[in-house]
Amino acid sequence: MTDDCNLITIIIASICIFIIVFMKRPLILVTNDDGISAPGLRNLISVMNEIGEVVVVAPDSPQSGMGHAITINNTLRCTKIKLDNGPQTEYSCSGTPADCVKLGVHEILKIKPDLCVSGINHGSNSSINVIYSGTMSAAIEAGIEGIPAIGFSFLDYSWDADFSQIRPFIKKIALSAIKNGMSKGVVLNVNLPNLNFENIKGIKICRQAHAYWIEEFDKRNDPTGKEYYWLTGKFVNKDVKSKNTDEWALKNGYVSIVPVHFDMTAHNYINELEKWKF
Amino acid sequence: MTDDCNLITIIIASICIFIIVFMKRPLILVTNDDGISAPGLRNLISVMNEIGEVVVVAPDSPQSGMGHAITINNTLRCTKIKLDNGPQTEYSCSGTPADCVKLGVHEILKIKPDLCVSGINHGSNSSINVIYSGTMSAAIEAGIEGIPAIGFSFLDYSWDADFSQIRPFIKKIALSAIKNGMSKGVVLNVNLPNLNFENIKGIKICRQAHAYWIEEFDKRNDPTGKEYYWLTGKFVNKDVKSKNTDEWALKNGYVSIVPVHFDMTAHNYINELEKWKF
Repeated sequence: MTDDCNLITIIIASICIFIIVFMKRPLILVTNDDGISAPGLRNLISVMNEIGEVVVVAPDSPQSGMGHAITINNTLRCTKIKLDNGPQTEYSCSGTPADCVKLGVHEILKIKPDLCVSGINHGSNSSINVIYSGTMSAAIEAGIEGIPAIGFSFLDYSWDADFSQIRPFIKKIALSAIKNGMSKGVVLNVNLPNLNFENIKGIKICRQAHAYWIEEFDKRNDPTGKEYYWLTGKFVNKDVKSKNTDEWALKNGYVSIVPVHFDMTAHNYINELEKWKF
Repeated sequence: MTDDCNLITIIIASICIFIIVFMKRPLILVTNDDGISAPGLRNLISVMNEIGEVVVVAPDSPQSGMGHAITINNTLRCTKIKLDNGPQTEYSCSGTPADCVKLGVHEILKIKPDLCVSGINHGSNSSINVIYSGTMSAAIEAGIEGIPAIGFSFLDYSWDADFSQIRPFIKKIALSAIKNGMSKGVVLNVNLPNLNFENIKGIKICRQAHAYWIEEFDKRNDPTGKEYYWLTGKFVNKDVKSKNTDEWALKNGYVSIVPVHFDMTAHNYINELEKWKF
């Protein structure tokens, strides 16, 4: 009987260890650049709650177009808040998206999460927009820290965008990243077309399209007569013929995934520069 | 006699055309991220005045760590000013370094300059710092517009840094870029060691070192008892053995030049991602 009891105890303990080690829900850090109250972020939190333990550290105000800005000449504030009844823990931060990731990992979690997701951005971050994007800067900052990371952007700028159609894709891609793991030095830039679920043709792995903005400055006068400008622009895709770009995928009804790295070296130009003979 | 006169007229006209076309001084757009009054910028302007026609469009306040931020949710101001007796034309702008380039090219010059230079930054922008750097974001913005561009950074953070020792290298590299031209899609990240001219060993073409910052948040309390943070950190170079990195070059007394591109696609990871089978 004693031997049987021991055996049962060992089996139960093993099952417990198995549950703790292998069934542990992944720890997910969630952030964005549209601010903590943005519907895109609220949707991302709710999808991530289905997958793992969620900690949110997001900017207290919109940070669109912040690129990879960090706060080095000013102080940062970070406040624990509760915005809905979900199980996540949430912090509102005065900094940029990259600041939020730094604070989240080093001051709040104090360990590396299993995944960092940023978004869902209200508007596209495809092609050259990756450079200006606060959403992607958060994912890249996590990548620099060695954390698997994904930035999600939805091709609908409106605050009332219908995120329900794209939620299954968000979940599928996040689960794939957790299951497959990701190479150090690479993060994912995911853009989702503004279509109903049944009209989205699937997911395409792409490269960043060669595109740019032609700037147009809207020049106005303030009430005292002084000039000021609004930055506006027209997007130009120079890569319309290629079928392996994110722009092509989105235009043709696919979700685009571009693997993004942060080694900015133009390796294939090093030999050319050597010829300059300084 | 009439034939002789015609011949002389033709020769004089040809010389004039030659002078206008081939001796035209290059048009150089100058900007930075430390602000229009920074000694690094004033030195860069004075070196560029020796090379070409200089137009300065620089931020009216420090913009360090701004990454590739652009101003899309606020207005921009731009004021013509005169800060010294140099021949350059100068504008002080309320925006980020990337805004300054956009405004400079599209609203002030209304043509593409022959070169855009950014800096001289007070402090390094080597390795991963290229991602956070306002100095480099200005150069990259010019590169996106198809303008040859260089970001210069000096490994001395002090406002009283002695730029005289590195001026010959700045001039040499800028002249080389104008003479050789540069491939579209590539800009140069130049870092200069804090050494006397005679101790600088030369110029090395490099790749970006694999390095990162370990963040440390300095947590304090404001006079009302509320918590706030200062972002600090420790730089970690994971690439100490390689001799072809910018970090190695700078540590060993060389000026480093890294060709930088803004196609962020991790092309060598596309095949790996295809295996995820969505």
